[in-house]
Amino acid sequence: MFHLLDIIGTIAFAMSGALTAMNKKLDLFGVFIIAFVTAVGGGTLRDVMIGRTPVGWMLDLEYVYVICFAFVLTLVFRKKFEKLRTSLFLFDTIGLGVFTLIGLEKGISVGLHPTICIALGTMTACFGGVIRDILCAEIPVIFRKEIYATICILGGIVFFLLKSFHLDNDILYLITSLVIISVRLMAVKFKWYLPTLEKN
Amino acid sequence: MFHLLDIIGTIAFAMSGALTAMNKKLDLFGVFIIAFVTAVGGGTLRDVMIGRTPVGWMLDLEYVYVICFAFVLTLVFRKKFEKLRTSLFLFDTIGLGVFTLIGLEKGISVGLHPTICIALGTMTACFGGVIRDILCAEIPVIFRKEIYATICILGGIVFFLLKSFHLDNDILYLITSLVIISVRLMAVKFKWYLPTLEKN
Amino acid sequence: MFHLLDIIGTIAFAMSGALTAMNKKLDLFGVFIIAFVTAVGGGTLRDVMIGRTPVGWMLDLEYVYVICFAFVLTLVFRKKFEKLRTSLFLFDTIGLGVFTLIGLEKGISVGLHPTICIALGTMTACFGGVIRDILCAEIPVIFRKEIYATICILGGIVFFLLKSFHLDNDILYLITSLVIISVRLMAVKFKWYLPTLEKN
Repeated sequence: MFHLLDIIGTIAFAMSGALTAMNKKLDLFGVFIIAFVTAVGGGTLRDVMIGRTPVGWMLDLEYVYVICFAFVLTLVFRKKFEKLRTSLFLFDTIGLGVFTLIGLEKGISVGLHPTICIALGTMTACFGGVIRDILCAEIPVIFRKEIYATICILGGIVFFLLKSFHLDNDILYLITSLVIISVRLMAVKFKWYLPTLEKN
Repeated sequence: MFHLLDIIGTIAFAMSGALTAMNKKLDLFGVFIIAFVTAVGGGTLRDVMIGRTPVGWMLDLEYVYVICFAFVLTLVFRKKFEKLRTSLFLFDTIGLGVFTLIGLEKGISVGLHPTICIALGTMTACFGGVIRDILCAEIPVIFRKEIYATICILGGIVFFLLKSFHLDNDILYLITSLVIISVRLMAVKFKWYLPTLEKN
Repeated sequence: MFHLLDIIGTIAFAMSGALTAMNKKLDLFGVFIIAFVTAVGGGTLRDVMIGRTPVGWMLDLEYVYVICFAFVLTLVFRKKFEKLRTSLFLFDTIGLGVFTLIGLEKGISVGLHPTICIALGTMTACFGGVIRDILCAEIPVIFRKEIYATICILGGIVFFLLKSFHLDNDILYLITSLVIISVRLMAVKFKWYLPTLEKN
């Protein structure tokens, strides 16, 4: 079940990358690389920084195949995506929840402090998009518009609070991802933003 | 022989970086860093992601000296480069072939799957240029204009096809680099491009 | 004492990041990430490239707390910074000296060549700012305006020259950082720049 959600998240992230790259009028190779990097970039950064190398997707080819599949799907249905916006947004939100959990677990498995684990969860879920935006020569969207990373941090805090009650892992995962997913849905529905700060 | 070609490729990549940086009106330090990063950035990224650290150029100072040499050469002859365009292009193409082979071999030495080895070959040959463009605040040129990375992928596929016939390593290297170099020459000669995709 | 200066440098770098991010009108999360990355980005890059993982700040939470403190301080006093410009500049210059020394020492501890150690010192002191500028979609300021990285290289050369006289470590650190700090002050005072190079 968790694995299936991981696949869904990967597909959603790859599609979001591919669509951004098409908007920037990149060529086929550029679109593929941006799709790839959006899907695995956060996890790659995490693995490199904690020293789990070769990084995840080099050892488990499934991610490569799933991203290729998402890439082809996006090419074929690229003119239909307006109608699919809601589904895409839902998938992306599932990815946010699952990727945060994967990052949290990786940090715990290396024996890092909860604060750092939360940073790793947020990195896993959000920094693929950051690298996507940098490669497209844009200021990363999560730094200026959407409340996105903050939700991962919140999810991480909930995770460690619940963990201190020695809950079963399945229940822990379920509640954390439900918190992330529902706060994200509410944030978009009610247009919650983080404030920007004027210097003067 | 292979080592000589590696040096030629490194010089060509460093020069391409230095020239790009001069066009952006960077100062001397900026020009040097961009030259350096263009030459070793792809290999550095590869080494970090497969966990071969300290990365290559930190252990073999020859690269550092070669890049310094290329940097000085570019400074001195910077007004003459229009006339040297063809030679530079040839050197750059040699670099493309050699760097792809080095990346392929590194992947094999770590025991990774052929698909991942091809990705590492492409990364070694192309991502120095990607980092160069990001540092110059541009969308990487290989994502939007030139057919470049695709040739490395093609070269990688040829490499593994031939390898399955248990050819001698020297012949394997020779054919793969000749394929990469000749396809690149034809791509430029006949103006082959990858399509860009309109979303609407 | 050295540790105190490290803290002061970290605070100054985090503040410089936060102020840059506010100028770009990023939201609270964006400002925090840019502050964080400016402070620890150079050291992170260094640790990843020499294979000392998990990277420094993941193992020593003090950095995280210091950066959070600097972040809050910058938010609260963001309208007062015009008057504090001189202090900020002094703190930043202390950071330059201390971070260069930390990078030099890390390189020596891994057994790398002095040339590479100087590169690591420069990377530690300067590349947090480079990542900050990339995340803000700007060409890094140290590549085009200020004489900044060059001073770290100079400091590194002085360090190894003095080291060959088998000086006491404390004196070695003191002289190296004083050289870096005083050259930096003079560079700003007398408006020293590196030349840019016109191609035509």
